[in-house]
Amino acid sequence: MPYFDAASAAPLHPVARQAWSASLDEGWADPARLYREGRKARLLLDAAREAAAEAVGCRADELVFTPSGTRAVHSGIQGALAGRRRAGRHLIVSSVEHSSVLHSAEAFEADGGTVTQVAVGRTGAVTAPAYEAALRPDTALACLQSANHEVGTVQPVAEVAEVCRAAGVPLLVDAAQSLGWGPVEGDWSLLAASAHKWGGPPGVGLLVVRKGVRFAAQGPVDERESGRAPGFEDIPAIVAAAASLRAVRAEAAQEAVRLRELTERIRVRVPQLVPDVEVVGDPGRRLPGIVTFSCLYVDGEALLHELDRAGFSVSSGSSCTSSTLTPSHVLKAMGVLSEGNVRVSLPPGTAEADVERFLEVLPGAVAGVREKLGAPAPAVRAHVGELLVDSLGKRCPIPVIELARVIGDVPVGGTVRVLSDDAAARLDIPAWCEMRGQEYVGEEPAERGTAYLVRRLS
Amino acid sequence: MPYFDAASAAPLHPVARQAWSASLDEGWADPARLYREGRKARLLLDAAREAAAEAVGCRADELVFTPSGTRAVHSGIQGALAGRRRAGRHLIVSSVEHSSVLHSAEAFEADGGTVTQVAVGRTGAVTAPAYEAALRPDTALACLQSANHEVGTVQPVAEVAEVCRAAGVPLLVDAAQSLGWGPVEGDWSLLAASAHKWGGPPGVGLLVVRKGVRFAAQGPVDERESGRAPGFEDIPAIVAAAASLRAVRAEAAQEAVRLRELTERIRVRVPQLVPDVEVVGDPGRRLPGIVTFSCLYVDGEALLHELDRAGFSVSSGSSCTSSTLTPSHVLKAMGVLSEGNVRVSLPPGTAEADVERFLEVLPGAVAGVREKLGAPAPAVRAHVGELLVDSLGKRCPIPVIELARVIGDVPVGGTVRVLSDDAAARLDIPAWCEMRGQEYVGEEPAERGTAYLVRRLS
Repeated sequence: MPYFDAASAAPLHPVARQAWSASLDEGWADPARLYREGRKARLLLDAAREAAAEAVGCRADELVFTPSGTRAVHSGIQGALAGRRRAGRHLIVSSVEHSSVLHSAEAFEADGGTVTQVAVGRTGAVTAPAYEAALRPDTALACLQSANHEVGTVQPVAEVAEVCRAAGVPLLVDAAQSLGWGPVEGDWSLLAASAHKWGGPPGVGLLVVRKGVRFAAQGPVDERESGRAPGFEDIPAIVAAAASLRAVRAEAAQEAVRLRELTERIRVRVPQLVPDVEVVGDPGRRLPGIVTFSCLYVDGEALLHELDRAGFSVSSGSSCTSSTLTPSHVLKAMGVLSEGNVRVSLPPGTAEADVERFLEVLPGAVAGVREKLGAPAPAVRAHVGELLVDSLGKRCPIPVIELARVIGDVPVGGTVRVLSDDAAARLDIPAWCEMRGQEYVGEEPAERGTAYLVRRLS
Repeated sequence: MPYFDAASAAPLHPVARQAWSASLDEGWADPARLYREGRKARLLLDAAREAAAEAVGCRADELVFTPSGTRAVHSGIQGALAGRRRAGRHLIVSSVEHSSVLHSAEAFEADGGTVTQVAVGRTGAVTAPAYEAALRPDTALACLQSANHEVGTVQPVAEVAEVCRAAGVPLLVDAAQSLGWGPVEGDWSLLAASAHKWGGPPGVGLLVVRKGVRFAAQGPVDERESGRAPGFEDIPAIVAAAASLRAVRAEAAQEAVRLRELTERIRVRVPQLVPDVEVVGDPGRRLPGIVTFSCLYVDGEALLHELDRAGFSVSSGSSCTSSTLTPSHVLKAMGVLSEGNVRVSLPPGTAEADVERFLEVLPGAVAGVREKLGAPAPAVRAHVGELLVDSLGKRCPIPVIELARVIGDVPVGGTVRVLSDDAAARLDIPAWCEMRGQEYVGEEPAERGTAYLVRRLS
């Protein structure tokens, strides 16, 4: 049963399991105590910190363990902003950061701070000049992920760090997706990561604050982890995290080549096997294990369900797959199609045969979903050269399906007006136009919902 | 090698270890995902929540898992204070709460809130009338531990909850020390606990917020754990926490009787075996496994070191045992002796023979430390009927030792003036007077440090 959602959580690496079991007998006591059980726990904690710091490429006293990557991001951003409060209250983030970063930014805004979101191109990458342009005299902190969690695009961290450094602004890097593959390049100031993304246990994050970076931990005082991560340390999990990071790194170079070949195979073959697909993300500068594509006229949740029935666990940034009704902010920021979205993220060790099997199964799964959704469009002729499609009350991907079904009914140069009250339509109708070589004219407010205007070009 | 510091961290219960291992294969994936690995993780998480809620005596949807007891306390207090902001910005805590509560109170004060500390009696217990007196129209929240972590005294939670309820003020109970023994009695509103205190794994705390209690989670938004505990859930640890709580509870009644007999033995025999000892805490209303005593003329760190060499791991609230130079705030609030303080907290399963061996070893360990410290007091005759002891620059327990050595040199009715700049003297000199039937006259500022006046009565 192939699990292809390593970007959410990787299955526990065998070394993590061994290290956890092995450290249970010596790692349960309070490392702040002076008796032998405490001293043993302290030794394990210190050794884990050394190992993790070596893998990150920092000093051991710059690294603390947090209860999760999310908490590392929250504490890192809060502490850095508070430490630089005198510089000002402006924060820069990219528009494709992980929700933990974006939610920290929202909390900062609610508290009176100002946030600039740096836009990304169609591949999901920021540019250093865009960060440079966002820097202000009152900028306290900039944040950038090392690589995107939804499409795998690697960000130009070293270049962005350089422009931040030149302006005297610290850069916090969310390295959650990439730390298992290698250290983060460049002269960054803070770094956050999450062990369960590299095959370590849940319950462990890393927060690195370089010496010399102003930092003021927020919240109630606590003496543990240099005052930066309150609460009793989970030492067996920390040991497992550090040991598995080492183990994963030892296999990283070879595994990267292997997984990159497998994801490249998906990138190339999915558009050959499935009609009306857009593969998103940077084709070159990307993580080895992630490949993401969107399928026109497909309901993301139904497709995930089909793939799950066929034994494949993947995730989706479509609006119709989770508790939320809005499409992924990453796909939105990239301006790419969000409907029928599938993220395949291969864990290390993924078998080639499983990927081949996925490529066998996918076309039928997509076709099945499309067939179920393939109701004829209720097109009503409005006036000469314009058709009105009433998709009010219908959710993604129905509005786009209905648009596609009627576009041939207007003459070239004529327009289709799609009425929709589904948030995904705002993203998916322009994306469909771009994919199909039609002109997206724009949107207009309508009595109910929004009218999206499309001109037939071919 | 007997470990007698269960109040800091209990060794992992075998059931916790089994549950952790067993849930690893099904509990590593993201419980928010719809594919089978996610559904399995969700099932484990839901079952653990049901089990924990049953043990607490609350509804499953009132309980969230946090990364530690400390985080449960921090989030619980912040959320409850924010949720009741319109009621006012006054917080009540007892003076003997865990540092996580007191540090939350300090953070609240730094943010403009007002805090009332309710005093305790000499046994360490608060009274409901004292809480009632502290309640104000603008009181947003009151906090009380279920039992004290340093001396084991059980607090009158039900009575305090009643007076709070009558005033419409929610009561948050820190149940870290008692939850393994049984549910918290009374009509409390919020509850925090920590799994590693009952033999569960580190990395898991509980936060319970009763339906109807106003609560506004603070910090960046996160959808996990009802928005009250950000970050990816550590499901194997959560399962281990819930399973071990069940297991510990199944053994609790029988084990409580057994441990209570063992700690009673220590309470009775230590004063018989060791001269100049004060056993502290409530003799009756106390946790089964904790007994605490202080030894005059003893340096706490040296005694811990002696006991550790003899194979016993205990902790101490003396000023000279940890990174801090001030004595335990609990002993201070109780007004009892802090020097040579030893807390024995027996984990379930402690062998009677180990307690007997501890009672054999203790007198020699105390005598050894006292002998090393037994330098003659540098007493200088001041004027008739008064002796001056210059203990400036000397740390606990030296000032008390020097006082004790000269008290016989003044006539009955005469006074000894002890000059000291050690913070522990302010607590320990009055405590010594009470223990020895001498009169503590008071303190006066001196050119350096403080002068403590003692009148010889016998």
